[in-house]
Amino acid sequence: MPGIATLTTDFGTDGPYVAAMKGVLLGLAPGTQVVDVCHTISPQNIVEGAFVLAGIVDAFPAGTVHLVVIDPGVGTDRRLIAARAADQWFVLPDNGLISGVTRLHEPEQIWEIKNPAVRRAVVSNTFHGRDILAPAAAHLLLGREPSELGPPVSKLVRLRNLDPTRDAGGFQAEVIFRDTFGNLITNVGASLLADCPPDGWVVEVAGRRIEGLSRTYGDQPSGSLIALVGSSGWVEVAVVDGDAGRLLTAGPGTSVWIRNSKSPAPPHAALARG
Amino acid sequence: MPGIATLTTDFGTDGPYVAAMKGVLLGLAPGTQVVDVCHTISPQNIVEGAFVLAGIVDAFPAGTVHLVVIDPGVGTDRRLIAARAADQWFVLPDNGLISGVTRLHEPEQIWEIKNPAVRRAVVSNTFHGRDILAPAAAHLLLGREPSELGPPVSKLVRLRNLDPTRDAGGFQAEVIFRDTFGNLITNVGASLLADCPPDGWVVEVAGRRIEGLSRTYGDQPSGSLIALVGSSGWVEVAVVDGDAGRLLTAGPGTSVWIRNSKSPAPPHAALARG
Amino acid sequence: MPGIATLTTDFGTDGPYVAAMKGVLLGLAPGTQVVDVCHTISPQNIVEGAFVLAGIVDAFPAGTVHLVVIDPGVGTDRRLIAARAADQWFVLPDNGLISGVTRLHEPEQIWEIKNPAVRRAVVSNTFHGRDILAPAAAHLLLGREPSELGPPVSKLVRLRNLDPTRDAGGFQAEVIFRDTFGNLITNVGASLLADCPPDGWVVEVAGRRIEGLSRTYGDQPSGSLIALVGSSGWVEVAVVDGDAGRLLTAGPGTSVWIRNSKSPAPPHAALARG
Repeated sequence: MPGIATLTTDFGTDGPYVAAMKGVLLGLAPGTQVVDVCHTISPQNIVEGAFVLAGIVDAFPAGTVHLVVIDPGVGTDRRLIAARAADQWFVLPDNGLISGVTRLHEPEQIWEIKNPAVRRAVVSNTFHGRDILAPAAAHLLLGREPSELGPPVSKLVRLRNLDPTRDAGGFQAEVIFRDTFGNLITNVGASLLADCPPDGWVVEVAGRRIEGLSRTYGDQPSGSLIALVGSSGWVEVAVVDGDAGRLLTAGPGTSVWIRNSKSPAPPHAALARG
Repeated sequence: MPGIATLTTDFGTDGPYVAAMKGVLLGLAPGTQVVDVCHTISPQNIVEGAFVLAGIVDAFPAGTVHLVVIDPGVGTDRRLIAARAADQWFVLPDNGLISGVTRLHEPEQIWEIKNPAVRRAVVSNTFHGRDILAPAAAHLLLGREPSELGPPVSKLVRLRNLDPTRDAGGFQAEVIFRDTFGNLITNVGASLLADCPPDGWVVEVAGRRIEGLSRTYGDQPSGSLIALVGSSGWVEVAVVDGDAGRLLTAGPGTSVWIRNSKSPAPPHAALARG
Repeated sequence: MPGIATLTTDFGTDGPYVAAMKGVLLGLAPGTQVVDVCHTISPQNIVEGAFVLAGIVDAFPAGTVHLVVIDPGVGTDRRLIAARAADQWFVLPDNGLISGVTRLHEPEQIWEIKNPAVRRAVVSNTFHGRDILAPAAAHLLLGREPSELGPPVSKLVRLRNLDPTRDAGGFQAEVIFRDTFGNLITNVGASLLADCPPDGWVVEVAGRRIEGLSRTYGDQPSGSLIALVGSSGWVEVAVVDGDAGRLLTAGPGTSVWIRNSKSPAPPHAALARG
């Protein structure tokens, strides 16, 4: 059975770039099943890329190769890597993109991609996704030795803002993604909320206060502002049958406070901003 | 030969949601050919989803599984179904999404999807597309018994506004889709127009009157407002080399009257609106 | 190994049109790997389509069938063709779409597509991509004789504006594509610049003057306006960590002058416009 390769980039879907990468991949590893994850990551937005990648890893089977190209440093000396985590492969620049995955699954092993024999004959200065990363992904899809890509790597660049700051009563968090429905997904994973039942949490965002976590979108009347643990395991803020991002004029970077209602209120300015 | 699965959703193409669904599908039914139909259905717009789905069914081979997730009721007790029609499968919420298909092909059989053994180990409250519908689609792609999904279903939710209202001289219709070119596609199927030749019909929309149906876009001078039977078999309003939606400030929901020019004019307000 | 078909259209990604074409293709040539190149070519913009197609051809393996549908003349008597170039196939209207490819690879042979036996049973007047071109692509993917499609063709429609005008000191060129990052890609191929080293060229656009060609985006300080040879081999204008299209309010059609700094300045108005 041929392997699966997923593609996540900030190339947009308007030009030849994504397809050029696929052509190289399919030429080198014929029959690969290519799955587009998303090509409209905001240009060079590594946090957004890391979030999207984290949202798919548990859905794919072992052996999948995830090729991710959000690469503001292309043409400079930033490192390209292939990492193995959760029995899957991640081929990407070492700029923090893998941070969402590593929160869930610590990599088993990492290699730098630098073997000139595993790349296209002519390597451009501006499109390493096509010329270096796609051939590296094909190498892994063909079941070849990862150590042929380059030397092992022991440390990764990791993003800080995929984790909230813990304080006395809970978490100072932020929105890391606004989806098509306007749901605001925060950097607070469900596992952080184990020490208090769902109705014991209070979420504050953009001057609004939400009491308790709902189970699903349909639990409250239309138009209600709610918080819940979304399908990827992060706390999100939503409006039932509506658009929370528009209602609150909020999006990536917006501060969110999530705290245990039994705790004394921490000294912050959330409600004053409303 | 592996099977074909098509995907139609309102998830947008900016996040991890579509790919997560594909990962589950490919993990359970390896080798499936996945075809994206459209992921930019207006959020929770069932009419638009039904129209798009109807537009592809006759193009796909027998055995294709169409997975459609536009699901405002996720997490409530709305029913999920698998229907067989035109030798193809439709896996979707029972909220009217199948209505465009059933206008063309009455389902042979329908099952409710409720067997807990045919779903992901952990089912989220907000993403049944990934956790219940994708596994059900994989079940059918693997050639397993549809009756293992759940009990047979005898009645479907059907949308009313995919059919125009017939009156003395023709039809009170509406626009159900505005495409990329600005063409306004109505809910009047070509089969309804058999009792009068193409040049006998008059179409009225947004205060404008169009005499006769054209054969194709190139039949009239550039800039002409025309009506014709489009490629999916519905009457549509177009501007030659232009954008009818923009010219008429019209889109889904806009009223359209289509009548036989030999009939007395029905009492309506179409022209008065201009 | 099944063949590869790429799809490039101006259909948008919002409706059923692209998927309908894929359904026909997969029904006739089962197992074909379908690669979406781009479906958001500006409606009926042949230059943009020709540019995008040229940007992928060298990435795909021999035998790939490129199906391209940007077809303002659908339903009129414009010609549909299948051309063989660079060991790949191009199935498209003969309206100039192939011009970007033919700059790089002169076609070996061309056939008109007109055999009524190689099309869908019912051919619509408005969707020849689905009803005639997809079946022709499937015919080639199945390894059948191209001469069964129709008679050989000796002349092609070619676009003029994919080539710059040569003058005393260099080239009067234009922007032919603005990508997601705002990079402005011109119609000057790298091969035209062989008679002068990279630092000897001066690029003028929208009243701005750029001295020398950079090697990559990261060579200059953030915010710098630069010119370089991009990944598809064309000269492009970019802003480091920024958006050149927005900075210069420029896009397809904007004039660009590229000249050898050793030459006397040609009589043009570039700087006067700033």
